[in-house]
Amino acid sequence: MRITTPTLLLDKRKALNNIGRMVQKAKENGVRLRPHFKTHQSAQVGAWFQEFGIDAITVSSVRMARYFANHGWKDIMIAFPANVLEMDDMNELATRVNLHLLAVNVETVEALSIGLKHPVQLWVKIDTGYRRTGVLANNHKELDRLLGQVKESGNLHFAGFVAHDGHTYKQTDIYAIQTIHNTSVYLLQLLRKRYKGQFPNLQLSIGDTPSCSILSDLSGVDEIRPGNFVFYDLTQQRIGSCGFDDIAVCMACPVVAKHPKRGEIIIYGGSVHFSKDALAQEDSSVLYGRVVELTNDGWTTPVNGIDLVSLSQEHGVVKASSRHFEKYHVGDIIGILPVHSCLTADLMRGYMSTEGAWLEHLSGVPRQELVLI
Amino acid sequence: MRITTPTLLLDKRKALNNIGRMVQKAKENGVRLRPHFKTHQSAQVGAWFQEFGIDAITVSSVRMARYFANHGWKDIMIAFPANVLEMDDMNELATRVNLHLLAVNVETVEALSIGLKHPVQLWVKIDTGYRRTGVLANNHKELDRLLGQVKESGNLHFAGFVAHDGHTYKQTDIYAIQTIHNTSVYLLQLLRKRYKGQFPNLQLSIGDTPSCSILSDLSGVDEIRPGNFVFYDLTQQRIGSCGFDDIAVCMACPVVAKHPKRGEIIIYGGSVHFSKDALAQEDSSVLYGRVVELTNDGWTTPVNGIDLVSLSQEHGVVKASSRHFEKYHVGDIIGILPVHSCLTADLMRGYMSTEGAWLEHLSGVPRQELVLI
Repeated sequence: MRITTPTLLLDKRKALNNIGRMVQKAKENGVRLRPHFKTHQSAQVGAWFQEFGIDAITVSSVRMARYFANHGWKDIMIAFPANVLEMDDMNELATRVNLHLLAVNVETVEALSIGLKHPVQLWVKIDTGYRRTGVLANNHKELDRLLGQVKESGNLHFAGFVAHDGHTYKQTDIYAIQTIHNTSVYLLQLLRKRYKGQFPNLQLSIGDTPSCSILSDLSGVDEIRPGNFVFYDLTQQRIGSCGFDDIAVCMACPVVAKHPKRGEIIIYGGSVHFSKDALAQEDSSVLYGRVVELTNDGWTTPVNGIDLVSLSQEHGVVKASSRHFEKYHVGDIIGILPVHSCLTADLMRGYMSTEGAWLEHLSGVPRQELVLI
Repeated sequence: MRITTPTLLLDKRKALNNIGRMVQKAKENGVRLRPHFKTHQSAQVGAWFQEFGIDAITVSSVRMARYFANHGWKDIMIAFPANVLEMDDMNELATRVNLHLLAVNVETVEALSIGLKHPVQLWVKIDTGYRRTGVLANNHKELDRLLGQVKESGNLHFAGFVAHDGHTYKQTDIYAIQTIHNTSVYLLQLLRKRYKGQFPNLQLSIGDTPSCSILSDLSGVDEIRPGNFVFYDLTQQRIGSCGFDDIAVCMACPVVAKHPKRGEIIIYGGSVHFSKDALAQEDSSVLYGRVVELTNDGWTTPVNGIDLVSLSQEHGVVKASSRHFEKYHVGDIIGILPVHSCLTADLMRGYMSTEGAWLEHLSGVPRQELVLI
């Protein structure tokens, strides 16, 4: 394939290394790895996990669950507060996979009790500090009510408690991340203690990419659910979850103009390709990607002195020192590591592997043009 | 159709009013309206423009040009610095539409001269102050070289100068926008004067949505190319381009959880639906959308005291005063006006009209689930 429009490259070797490391860490800690597939949303990338013996996955929507069910996955958690408006779809899925749903309130449990015609695993989402959603760990009154409802339901089987420490994304200090993780595990264990009399098999599930990547001790829970680690990105590198060398996706964008006086290279590649997620710099500026050199079989680590500094819908502005500016010409392809690989992959809707294969995305229609040669 | 997942609603009546007003203004000013279709990217919305007699359009990529060519459009400007890597596609398009390309440098003109097998209209993009890309209006040396190359080429027919005043988006003051517009028109007219001896038919094309919406005098050029005005959004309302009543698209998102102590409603609707574009508030906070009440045939203007204040990949957090908080329940649909309709539409990939029709998007596969009842 020949690159003529913005294209998301995927280095399979790096992704396999990232998967392998997380599989090994889960094994050492005696926890199940239930990777989150919202990052790649690709049947083929999913198949790479199967080679490591992974058989249970996490997704973030009913549609994503259906996509992976259609590709043979049999044990799927939809890690999003169950959307009761999608009852028909959840019922259909429950007939053919071991479906895990999340509840964060009594109303949803009531609606699921009435609407579900097939057994599902129900997890209760606990807010251990992120404060996005979930029942607060010390809100025993709400948990008692909620679990009371679950018990009375025929098709809801209480599986345990899940948490997501999204607040680790704001940290760059291993001790801060360790503290967040320890707090969450401690709070979940208190809940297990409280409810294990009623639900002897209840499990604990946790796991954001920063904690799972940075910490060595992930014991104390039954399951981890990181997702971004398969690709990583500049945000994770900043946090400390990975090295630049581990980032497995790279945008390839055509150079369409150069402005020598400003040292700016205009690329075909904008917010509809990268997403608007930005990385704050020490001088309070932001960047939308870091430039690498494309090689025969992948790309280098980021080059200093040349960054993607601005995005509009289809244009990107790369600011370069004079040395780097001279290297690029109109019609060249420039490699750029993304700030947030989940959003970039969701926008690009498909991957070109560094081995030359096309990898699909659940949305079905890639944004880039495929020029087969 | 029944809404079960995040869905982009489109009020056809408002869109038609927006189109009608711009058509009228173009007529009064004696300029051609060549609307930018990157905002809606929809064949059906495009057809609404045809009813007003519009026969020439602007797009931002070769792919978008092909899509609209396939839907019968015959006069298409790709308002993006010509990407020489897509020569084959440009050639194919040039066989069946009156294709207009943009150049900002001599290298591109040289590559087009060699690569194009069919005649196209070539416009030179002038930077009149936005400083994204384009030749500076006073860089006569570069323009002389560039136009010299165009003249020698068999298939490049010089059409004129285009400018895009993207810097109006940073303004909220009509006099600032007027000044930007006047400056651009003045600079373009100087160029016309300089080159009309060589190119007697050269035209001037300009037109961002703020200028075209706010200013009454758009004379002095031949063509205007606004795009966002078909839908408008909260950004345009802030600038002063439209009223809340004119915003023709609205997200409809399921409520999945409520947190009474924090006054926060969790919706199914995140950065993969809205985009991360945010609107800065006076207190230096940001918002990602404003809540409206959905009615039988559309929606109200924004309600005070309830806003979309945070987004992650699939979750949105709506902060509400206690009065508004009580109104919404798990399983309800909440209406939210987007900050940037172009990016929201690009992410949602399709529209449900308030008349109940499904309107396609060039990407072909909608993000939302279509539940036909």
